[in-house]
Amino acid sequence: MEIAAINDEFLPYEELEPIYLDRALYFGDGVYEVLRSYDGKIFAIDDHFARFNNSLNAISITGVSLDEIKRKVLEAVEKAGIPNARIYFHITRGSAPRNHAFPEDIKPNFFLTVTELPDSSKSKDNGIAVSTYPDLRWKRCDIKSLNLLANILARQDAEKKGCDEAILVNDDGLITEGAGSSFLAIFGDTLQTAPLSYSILESVTRKYIMQAAESLGMQILEESMTVDKAKEANELLLAVTTKDVVPVVKFDDVVIGDGKVGVYTQKIMDQFKELVHSMR
Amino acid sequence: MEIAAINDEFLPYEELEPIYLDRALYFGDGVYEVLRSYDGKIFAIDDHFARFNNSLNAISITGVSLDEIKRKVLEAVEKAGIPNARIYFHITRGSAPRNHAFPEDIKPNFFLTVTELPDSSKSKDNGIAVSTYPDLRWKRCDIKSLNLLANILARQDAEKKGCDEAILVNDDGLITEGAGSSFLAIFGDTLQTAPLSYSILESVTRKYIMQAAESLGMQILEESMTVDKAKEANELLLAVTTKDVVPVVKFDDVVIGDGKVGVYTQKIMDQFKELVHSMR
Repeated sequence: MEIAAINDEFLPYEELEPIYLDRALYFGDGVYEVLRSYDGKIFAIDDHFARFNNSLNAISITGVSLDEIKRKVLEAVEKAGIPNARIYFHITRGSAPRNHAFPEDIKPNFFLTVTELPDSSKSKDNGIAVSTYPDLRWKRCDIKSLNLLANILARQDAEKKGCDEAILVNDDGLITEGAGSSFLAIFGDTLQTAPLSYSILESVTRKYIMQAAESLGMQILEESMTVDKAKEANELLLAVTTKDVVPVVKFDDVVIGDGKVGVYTQKIMDQFKELVHSMR
Repeated sequence: MEIAAINDEFLPYEELEPIYLDRALYFGDGVYEVLRSYDGKIFAIDDHFARFNNSLNAISITGVSLDEIKRKVLEAVEKAGIPNARIYFHITRGSAPRNHAFPEDIKPNFFLTVTELPDSSKSKDNGIAVSTYPDLRWKRCDIKSLNLLANILARQDAEKKGCDEAILVNDDGLITEGAGSSFLAIFGDTLQTAPLSYSILESVTRKYIMQAAESLGMQILEESMTVDKAKEANELLLAVTTKDVVPVVKFDDVVIGDGKVGVYTQKIMDQFKELVHSMR
């Protein structure tokens, strides 16, 4: 008889619930999105769904109705009634006995949570410390996939060092992005960040930060930078959906600027707040 | 109220069962092993557990008793009573609300299946066809982790081409290994395969194939080879736990040797059979 064990419990294999055969568990075979709401209104939902669609296509998960998912997201957010919510969802390829190849008729699984966003005002008011870590990730970081072990190891290293985020550095010594964020730097009146490629995720927040910077008359430079270059920046900041703009005041052992939130970063945060307000 | 959705069903977030908060689902944050039994006897269990221990250490999953897992594996195999069984198990970091960083006191989750091994005699008698695919994986393929999306994409490509396995080729044009196997070639009386490194998994079967080749008086060369070089091999073969030695008779569009199982490969298979027999 085919057997399974879940922690200390043995059971017949055939009695396993579908979740235990979800390919996300065995292979990370799925893609996800994180959105947030401000005062009950979801930010940039179309951008997130466009990216989600790209992720699904990139790993050939088919038979998913984006309209249906959007409907579920909106329904969940309404049910939750949480003004500032974190909305996470993923689609996995589906449940099947473990095998690299998958059955043609496999049905994707959907999973979603809507939870309270932790308060990030301290990070935004005082800025955070970040530390560098080798970028060990795979070659398709443009896909928002469930293969995030390299990100975990980087973040774990940052936590050990008392930092809030890990900044990933590739084999050429160039910064790609944060373990769970986009990385941007300000030199004079120029906002610099790595160009979009297979090596970084197309961050929605990054896009709106760049728009905000442009509206402030800043120059935009999409060019990767070295660790040494980043240490010389006037200001550093992260883009992350759940906190939008996060000032960085310490980078490895180097204090950035005067160790406080930079002038341009503050202006970008203010612009972002206005943008959010105008979207309501 | 915090909300979750599982496919079409909404439920309060707090009612989610722990499996839905398993970090394997969100991050592939876990490591696994596959073993097999021959006539009820597990092959090379100590090798597999040594590798599993390395994987656990590499991603800092702590608080796992290998003795206890071994006991469960043996108990499951006995309960199953399947002579030629495939034994899969993984340990994940545990269940917690989704966050890259994890609580210090998180408790690892264990999952195991013991299932019937599909018959592989056709592959072993006739050999298989393989196709090449870019190695998109991360930089720590020595860790047997649950981040296997690059492997899936490669295998999916192979299936589309009517092949049984994808052979991964890195940016330097060198073969690393198969999507779910080790890759070996025979030139004259030399068995060649990529050296152990962060780029490949330390295959248990590869080790025993190398021992078998040595006992046949063959030379061993641990050196990576190009795709063109592989096409010129006298024989090609794969090492994979569930099928041990698998002859490869077609590599992309090239027929290897005379398109039948090679002489040395057959001898290695015979040696392997004897080894298995002697271990009983």
